[in-house]
Amino acid sequence: MRKLKITEMGRMSVDEFKESEKMPLVVVLDDVRSMYNVGSVFRTSDAFRVAAIHLCGITAQPPHAEIHKTALGAEDSVEWEYFSSAKDSVRALQEQGFKVFAVEQAEGSTMLQNLSLGNDKGKYAIVMGNEVKGVNQEVVDMCDGCIEIPQFGTKHSLNVSTTAGIVIWEFAKKMIIE
Amino acid sequence: MRKLKITEMGRMSVDEFKESEKMPLVVVLDDVRSMYNVGSVFRTSDAFRVAAIHLCGITAQPPHAEIHKTALGAEDSVEWEYFSSAKDSVRALQEQGFKVFAVEQAEGSTMLQNLSLGNDKGKYAIVMGNEVKGVNQEVVDMCDGCIEIPQFGTKHSLNVSTTAGIVIWEFAKKMIIE
Repeated sequence: MRKLKITEMGRMSVDEFKESEKMPLVVVLDDVRSMYNVGSVFRTSDAFRVAAIHLCGITAQPPHAEIHKTALGAEDSVEWEYFSSAKDSVRALQEQGFKVFAVEQAEGSTMLQNLSLGNDKGKYAIVMGNEVKGVNQEVVDMCDGCIEIPQFGTKHSLNVSTTAGIVIWEFAKKMIIE
Repeated sequence: MRKLKITEMGRMSVDEFKESEKMPLVVVLDDVRSMYNVGSVFRTSDAFRVAAIHLCGITAQPPHAEIHKTALGAEDSVEWEYFSSAKDSVRALQEQGFKVFAVEQAEGSTMLQNLSLGNDKGKYAIVMGNEVKGVNQEVVDMCDGCIEIPQFGTKHSLNVSTTAGIVIWEFAKKMIIE
């Protein structure tokens, strides 16, 4: 099978992206330490036309050379906003009618494969946390629920950017692909 | 919702992992340059009990401090093998009855959301390529097909470790979760 050339992929420009219809999903990063992870989340959010990224707490903001290394320009296409506390982000989203899920291993969490958006697809946000501590418990307490990726190995969690990729993909399938 | 403590997650030890039943999926990395990506693929493969990783060409091998940074020990649990050429890996897998897919944007590729393993689930391998060049065309030519993640943004591709996460997750859902 012949690989497509870049010119055959029909990607849009940054200006076209800004005008395009977005998936009604906001990605909230709560105290994410690694700029590699921040950049990678921008790149994935560009690919699936995420509505916005909320960078909270210690999470670094563009423009930054370390974010650019993995975002590769997606930090210019995807809309983002900074909040000193993820609690302010979650509160603002809920006031705007977003249903907010923490991506966490928690009591009573919804396993990702069982996620259902129902008929009324609505607006959603997902919160991902610090590489070591995860989402702050007080942020989890504000959320409308937790989404968990089932895991079967020796490690306690997946990488933040991998987690974001898998969860954004599931929302994309339900919101813009299926 | 209360976050689980690490001791409540019931993760297995490396010895238990090695004895455990694996998902019949092999991940082949063809000339992957970034050790961050290699380590991250180990960590994801641990989480979903991937049968083995084939490290090919210039792809770095453990033990290596840079791989450890993102694998966080998963390089000790997940089985791996080195091949100087990905062609040797693909040939060996096909001789063992694996159906091998390149993860590429190619003519006639299968979109990931349409992937079906049918009733006879069998054994599968997925090949991911270099960060810039993708999977080598001659490796693609040997494969049984291509799997493509649909993308809607400005960038030409997703990060290798994000791609691996999304595709391994889809296989895990079909092989061990659903």
